[in-house]
Formats: sequence, C-alpha cells, structure tokens
Amino acid sequence: MEQNHHVVVVGGGFGGLELVNDLRGAPVRITLIDRRNHHLFQPLLYQVATTILATSEIAWPIRHLYRDRPEVMTLLGEVQGVDRLTKTVTLANGQAVPYDTLVLATGATHAYFGRDEWAPVAPGLKTLEDATTIRRRVLLAFEQAEIEEDPARRDALLTFTIIGAGPTGVELAGIIAEMAHRTLPGEFRRIDTRQSRVVLVEAGPRILPAFAEELSAYAMTELGKLGVEVLTGTPVTDCTEAGVRIGDSFVPSRTLVWAAGVQASPAANWLGIVADRAGRAIVDQHLTAPGNPDVFVIGDTASVKQENGTPVPGIAPAAKQQGAFVARVIRARLAGQPMPKAFRYRHQGSLATIGKRAAIIDFGRIKLKGGLAWWIWGIAHIYFLIGTRSRFAVAWSWLWIFLSGQHSARLITQKETHRREE
Amino acid sequence: MEQNHHVVVVGGGFGGLELVNDLRGAPVRITLIDRRNHHLFQPLLYQVATTILATSEIAWPIRHLYRDRPEVMTLLGEVQGVDRLTKTVTLANGQAVPYDTLVLATGATHAYFGRDEWAPVAPGLKTLEDATTIRRRVLLAFEQAEIEEDPARRDALLTFTIIGAGPTGVELAGIIAEMAHRTLPGEFRRIDTRQSRVVLVEAGPRILPAFAEELSAYAMTELGKLGVEVLTGTPVTDCTEAGVRIGDSFVPSRTLVWAAGVQASPAANWLGIVADRAGRAIVDQHLTAPGNPDVFVIGDTASVKQENGTPVPGIAPAAKQQGAFVARVIRARLAGQPMPKAFRYRHQGSLATIGKRAAIIDFGRIKLKGGLAWWIWGIAHIYFLIGTRSRFAVAWSWLWIFLSGQHSARLITQKETHRREE
Repeated sequence: MEQNHHVVVVGGGFGGLELVNDLRGAPVRITLIDRRNHHLFQPLLYQVATTILATSEIAWPIRHLYRDRPEVMTLLGEVQGVDRLTKTVTLANGQAVPYDTLVLATGATHAYFGRDEWAPVAPGLKTLEDATTIRRRVLLAFEQAEIEEDPARRDALLTFTIIGAGPTGVELAGIIAEMAHRTLPGEFRRIDTRQSRVVLVEAGPRILPAFAEELSAYAMTELGKLGVEVLTGTPVTDCTEAGVRIGDSFVPSRTLVWAAGVQASPAANWLGIVADRAGRAIVDQHLTAPGNPDVFVIGDTASVKQENGTPVPGIAPAAKQQGAFVARVIRARLAGQPMPKAFRYRHQGSLATIGKRAAIIDFGRIKLKGGLAWWIWGIAHIYFLIGTRSRFAVAWSWLWIFLSGQHSARLITQKETHRREE
Repeated sequence: MEQNHHVVVVGGGFGGLELVNDLRGAPVRITLIDRRNHHLFQPLLYQVATTILATSEIAWPIRHLYRDRPEVMTLLGEVQGVDRLTKTVTLANGQAVPYDTLVLATGATHAYFGRDEWAPVAPGLKTLEDATTIRRRVLLAFEQAEIEEDPARRDALLTFTIIGAGPTGVELAGIIAEMAHRTLPGEFRRIDTRQSRVVLVEAGPRILPAFAEELSAYAMTELGKLGVEVLTGTPVTDCTEAGVRIGDSFVPSRTLVWAAGVQASPAANWLGIVADRAGRAIVDQHLTAPGNPDVFVIGDTASVKQENGTPVPGIAPAAKQQGAFVARVIRARLAGQPMPKAFRYRHQGSLATIGKRAAIIDFGRIKLKGGLAWWIWGIAHIYFLIGTRSRFAVAWSWLWIFLSGQHSARLITQKETHRREE
C-alpha cells in the first residue's frame, strides 16, 4: 500500500468535491486547487442574480469544508498547464505541483459561438461576480427608467432579454417577470414596472429541450401567465448596447443576459488530447485521458457518452457521479483490486422552476408539474446545500419571500468596469 | 397650508431617513436622492468586512422603505451642485431638481490628511464595496501566505495593520485577531495562522478617546488578550504596498486598513458657505445654512456645536436627532406655528465591541464592560436594524457564530482594479 500517493484535484465544483469526499480514509494525500476560494452551488446562482438570495448563502470556503481532513491541502491558484512527462501541474504564479494521480474537474464557462464581442453587453451566469453584475444591471435599468424622459429609451430600459431557454434562461426570465409585475409596482412613481417586457429567445424549436414535450409546453404556458414573451426557432444574430437582433427584427433592450452556450475549460489543451465541439476532453470509459491512466477528466470539462450514444449532460449530479467513480478507481488501483467497470451515468431526473410557484420535474416515467413539483424542487435544493447554517438561511429567505412577497437582496453594488453607465 | 411644498432630501443615511420618516403626514411632497440604491447600516459594516455578515443583511433598497408613501419619490442620482438663486439641485446626468426646502444629508467619507496616494493600499470602510475589498484582502493574505515560500514575505502577508483606534478600528482589529487565532487554525497546512500579527496604530495618546479612560484601558486589556498589538501616540508617516511606516520604524504588512480620518461631503462647497477643518458645513442653531433658511444641512456633513462647546459627534444617533429636528422645523413653518428652539444634541451613550465576547458602553454616569455590555450592544443593534427579515437574519448569523465559532461570509469576490495581485 502506497502511503504517500499524491492526488492533485483541480477544481472545487461538484465533481472535485465529491471525489475528495469519497477519498476519505484512502491511503493518499490530496491537493485541491481552485482559482476561487469557494465552492459555488451553481443551481441556485440565478437566485442571486434575481435578488432572492445573498452570495454567502450559496458559496462556502473550500478549505473550511476540509478543515478536519489534515491530508487535504487547499490551494488558491490558477492552473495554466499540465506536464505529463514530469507529472506536474503549473500554476499562474510559476509554482509547479507534482502529482501521482491528477483529476481535472475544471468545469465550463459560457460561450458566445465565436462572438466574444457580445460578452460585455450580454453577460452569462457562471460566477458570483456574474450574478452580481446581472443583479446590478436589472436593478439599474428600473432606476434609470424612472428618471428617463424619452419614451423610446425608457421602453428599452424596461425590456429585458434572456438568450437561451434551458433551465437557467427559463428561471431568470420567470423571476425577472415576477419582479417587474409583482414585487416592484408601487415603489416607482413615474414608471409602471408592469409595462416591462421580458423576452426569452431560443434558437431551437422549443424551450427546455432536455424535458419531455408536455413539460416544456406547460412551462411555456406558465411563462406566458407571468408575462414572459417566448420566441422559439429564432437565433440571435447580434447583441449591442442598444438591444438584440433576432433574425431580421431588432428588439431595443438595455439589459441582455446570455444563457445559451457553454465552452469547456482548456483541460483538453493542457493534456494535448482530442476535444469535442464544445471543447470537452474526450476521455475513455474510466474517465482517463487516452494513453494516460493516471490523469482523469470529470464533470463539465469531460466528454462522456451514455450507453444510448447521447452525451452525459453537464449537470451537477453527473459531475458528482463521475467524482465518485474516480474515487473508486483510485482506491481499487492503490489496493491492487480489480478496476470498476466502465463509468455509467444514471440520470436521476431534470428539474426547473418557473417563477416562485411552479416547477417541472422529469424523472423519465414520472413527470411532475406545478406547485407540488415546486415544493419537491425546493426541498431537494435545500437538502443539497452544504451545512446547517446555509439550509436555515436559504429556507428563511424563501419563507420570507413566500410570506411577504419581498426580495431581500436588492443591492446595486460594484461599478461597471467595461460598460458605460449613465 | 401649502399642499405642494417640495422637500428635496439628498442622502438616504440615518439623518435623511429619519427626516423622511418624521415628515409622514406633513403637507409636503418629498424627493429623496441618493447615489446608492440602498440605505446602509454603517455601525455593522465592519462585520461585513470581517466575514461575519452578508452585505444584504445590513442594507435595504431605499425605495422599498417608502413604497407605502406615494408622496415620496426616490431618485438614484449623484448631486453635483446647488443653485440657491433658482432653488435647484443639479445631478451628474444634467437633470435639475427644483426644491422649496432642501436638506443636505450627504455624510462623510474617509480622509487621508492630504495623503490620498495611501488610499489604494489602505482602504477605508464606508461603503459595501469598501467592506468586500477589505474582506477580500484579509482572506487573500492568508491564502497567499499558504503558498509563499519566502519567510519574510510570508510574515508580511500575515501582518494586518489597522490605522486609527476609534470604535471601527478597535472592532476590526478584534475580529481579525479572533479570525487568525481562533477561527482559521486547522484550515491551513503550511502556515499557522496563530502566528499572525494584528497591529492597531493610533496617533493619539489612547484608544477610543470618546470613551472614559477606564473603559479604554479595559479595551486595551481585552485587545491584548486577543493578541492585538496596540501602538498609541504613534502617527503613521507612510503607507505602501510593502507595509506601514510608524515614526522611524517600518512594519512589513501586506494588509492595511484605514480607520483614522473622515472628510465631509462637499455640501459646504455646493452652498458656498464656511466649513470647518473636516469640511463640514457650519450651520446655525436651526441647522440651516447661514442666510438660507430653506436649506438645511444635517448629519456627518454638518458642523454643529454642543452647549459645552464640543462638536456634535459624527454618529448615527446624532444624525437621527438632527433629521427629527428638521422635520419639526419644516412642519412648524408650514403650519405657521412658532419655530422649535435651537437644536440641542442629547448624547445617549457610546458603544464599541472588542471581539465577539466583550463590549464597552459609556452612558456617562453608567459605564458597562464585558459580557453584559456585549449582550446589550447586540440587542440594541438588532433592534435598530430595519425590518423583521434582517433582524432574524442577523440574529441567526450571530447565534450561529456563537454556537459554532464559524464565520459564514468568507468569500473572496471581485477582482482588484487598482492593485497588483500575485
């Protein structure tokens, strides 16, 4: 048994943490590297962007999670490359970290299909800073509309466009519509926030394509009740400060949010292995890099096929299953036991909320929608949060909104660095 | 009775809000202008800077507070000047807001005694952004120390210097020392955070000069128990990226916090009236600008003397009393009733905490210190928070820290814009 086998894990997301958790008691020492000091519960990030939750309710310092695991060392650092010959990871500060086993769990970011110039006007939602940026822009738009004298400019300020109708896009659109139509009226004197337009644009033929058709149809209806205008089969052709071009028509809109494409981290480049179209490293059936059995790639930055040939989706449960699988492989190798069979993804279901009262859940055979689905969604998410404190805090925030209808995190903070503000 | 008398209030701090609250039912319409969208509970801001509270627990959107007052209009805007002849306030966006009565409650910011080049390396604590900046720097210093190989640089990273030993400086030093000595040990593998130095520097002869000598002596003892090094009678002569010069000696220290001087807003300049040395507008006994009975200046931006000749302190209760006084003056004038007598400040007491278990309270005749004072301090602050939700949230955060010893808001967010990071 090798006592000092050194496992280096890059990325403290769902996959990386599950791996470290499952290696408890294994004969290894672990270095966990992340460029952030916190693990982020991304499924609720849209609620920070829409003033429901505070940042600290969905993020936890990584090193605090492993304070009782002396064999785990947490490093704040940004990986810039991997040298497979010397078996080292290079950090941005020049430091080289040697590994015996390497696990890359470095996730994905949003992608603009080659139109990176859209990024400043249509921010995506992957980090806490993204969430506060979107929150600031949404709140500032209402504030600026209140003092705007020109009707056309006021209308553009009161038009919010979300590009991409997966769960994040649908969730953002639903809450922004509820804010405009239910939370904010009565607080402004010159504008009627109920006149706001919330436009959800989807290039594909229907919203929420990962769900059964009947559930996406239900979500369409519910979004309509909240006042969201949904456009499907309509690719966005330009994003500017003034608005968004959709096919041949231009929608004047001062606030755009990008929820359309994702691009994997450069893990495949670091390893010099083949990537799929979204930049995800194509790994073999044990989630190892081809030709490198001591290098694993998991989560959103890995390209893995299901048995039916479709790709494993880029969602938290998939990353967690991969982290748990790699922990089993590492344990088996170190113990000289037979390797587990190939990684097999088990889809546990898809969830999405529409506003603050309805949700859809697609378990495959069982499909749920409406209020009951919303309660299951809420309880499941509170269950998966880390720590008693966060569970109470989020439950309290939600209960308060449920009782009072008032959002609690409506703060405009930080100045824009790359955008003109009036 | 004049139904459309227009009161313009600039600044949604303690003074401005008290004034608007006390004008409820008066025959006026009110425009409340602030460059932030939120009222900030500044007495607890140091707890955001030291990872105890989340930003949304101590800040509330101003327009939400007046949603039920249709005669109150809230404007997000930055005042750039006052024209007393045309009776208008000019905003940064060029808009001119006419007033019948104007109340300037624009507060103060930190001041570097003419050494503004110290601002980037020694941030002060007045806004939510200041608090997240300090939080980020403190947390990053520990993270960088963990990966630093050079002992001298590591020691500088683990040295935290707070300049100015009023309540804010004492409170910051106490909590940072507790973090280093009690919260963080066990989470790092290479450094021992208990080796950190927390240095509190005061130019004057003793810390907490607003308190009785016996209470400042007690605070000195308690800070010593927490491991804070207190230097009194030692003016800071230079602040750099590398550390702080105190008299002839140089303390290598990567994290500096400025809690020393304040400078009033330019209200006196806008009005063209005389200011005191700290830039505060010198007002007459009804808090009006000399020669302008329809222009009031209150709070930290006004210079007012007490009966004994000492200045009214720049604290929340003083600003509130002035806001309430001006509301009475406005009501009396509009009703054609006799004016209230001159403003008279009633000092209700001074409070400060040292760490998470001790506080001092100076009520004048009654002086309290220790655990009981800490409980009174905590209950008083929860009482003065706005709204049931915040009271529960802060009480829960404090209770959690009390029970678990763990801080909940340890997030490094936002990148530095004016400082090199390694």
